[in-house]
Amino acid sequence: MLSKSQIKLIASLKQKKYRLKHGFFVVEGVKTIKELLKSNLELHMLFTVETFNINAKTEVLITERELKQISFLTTPNKAMAIFKIPKVKPIDKKNLIVALDDVRDPGNLGTIIRLCDWFGIKDLICSKATVDCYNPKVIQATMGSITRVNISYIDLLDFITHTELPVFGAFMNGENVYQKRLLKKGVLIMGNEANGISKDLEALIKERIAIPRFGDLKTTESLNVATATAILLSEFSRSY
Amino acid sequence: MLSKSQIKLIASLKQKKYRLKHGFFVVEGVKTIKELLKSNLELHMLFTVETFNINAKTEVLITERELKQISFLTTPNKAMAIFKIPKVKPIDKKNLIVALDDVRDPGNLGTIIRLCDWFGIKDLICSKATVDCYNPKVIQATMGSITRVNISYIDLLDFITHTELPVFGAFMNGENVYQKRLLKKGVLIMGNEANGISKDLEALIKERIAIPRFGDLKTTESLNVATATAILLSEFSRSY
Repeated sequence: MLSKSQIKLIASLKQKKYRLKHGFFVVEGVKTIKELLKSNLELHMLFTVETFNINAKTEVLITERELKQISFLTTPNKAMAIFKIPKVKPIDKKNLIVALDDVRDPGNLGTIIRLCDWFGIKDLICSKATVDCYNPKVIQATMGSITRVNISYIDLLDFITHTELPVFGAFMNGENVYQKRLLKKGVLIMGNEANGISKDLEALIKERIAIPRFGDLKTTESLNVATATAILLSEFSRSY
Repeated sequence: MLSKSQIKLIASLKQKKYRLKHGFFVVEGVKTIKELLKSNLELHMLFTVETFNINAKTEVLITERELKQISFLTTPNKAMAIFKIPKVKPIDKKNLIVALDDVRDPGNLGTIIRLCDWFGIKDLICSKATVDCYNPKVIQATMGSITRVNISYIDLLDFITHTELPVFGAFMNGENVYQKRLLKKGVLIMGNEANGISKDLEALIKERIAIPRFGDLKTTESLNVATATAILLSEFSRSY
């Protein structure tokens, strides 16, 4: 049985403002919730149609109808959980760091988090205008990887200005990544979906890299930022 | 001004059955429509808020309100066009061919078509259960690349059984793709989102390839089929 205050809390967590205020985020679907329960994340409340057989205090059994009422999905999937947003850890500068400059699409961010997890990237740093990683659509796309990547929202221009790490940036007109010496340590910056890397940041980047185009040079559109990240992380990893 | 029969035709084209019956598909958005107009595709009708200055017969000026009525999008973008579905060309066996075994997600298929275009793949062959490439969500995700890739829906098991081309398949437990000799000619099979490549097809594949995982071996989920395709096409291309 759901209380009015629970319904209100869940609805508010759709917005970043209230996620920051309450320090909670929402996850849906039995599979993803079970994966998150195995991590270090702290569960606040679990609303489910079938029991998970966990601590009775945090579990609330609800009907399919109640789930439909609170779910952010068009086809709800048996359960919804509220977790505490974890504390951000210090950035580990001994490994490759991925940096996002205003990536706006939740699906792209979710895919990039999953890729960081696959390629063993520990730190993902995001400009303040990058979509919030606790956005329900991002969480849905990460498939649980969010628990294994440390995500920091920072002043990216300030970070890049002061870092001593080698800085790589993905550009349409950069050097062929297949012919470039890549390093184990450094920052790889990926730009916004429509505008790429911002001018201020671009001025600070010495290592401009590009994925060569093999199709018709005149007509082919650019690659999507998530697929470009996939290819570049593969290149950095295979060179180790 | 829209006629009742036009509204009915457009609504029907959301379904594969009617796309096949009428031989038409729908595209939305000024940018994508303009790109398609530059291709060999034949325009049937254009419904637009602002004139494109093209043949007056096929262009129908409509209001924003009328566009909202016919659009498949939540935020319609100035114009909607109906194009004729082009004839499929014979498969060119002299280049690398990408084959999809029951890829179901429209966004994934759209991304894969865009990747084929980027990497100069001329032919994409799909099993009959793969999502229809003229599905509006696929068209939206291809960003116009659909005009530059020849897409055939075939009996994939039959094709692979009879082909003399080398056949590569993407598996979780295949050989490290970074250490494998890849060829300019052949078929690369990518499997279904949940189940991978089907058992019958798997039995015919000699070259099993995998993208090594660099993250935590126990916990990381598999890669999404579109990002895996990005990495593998990059590997095939860089080896030329």
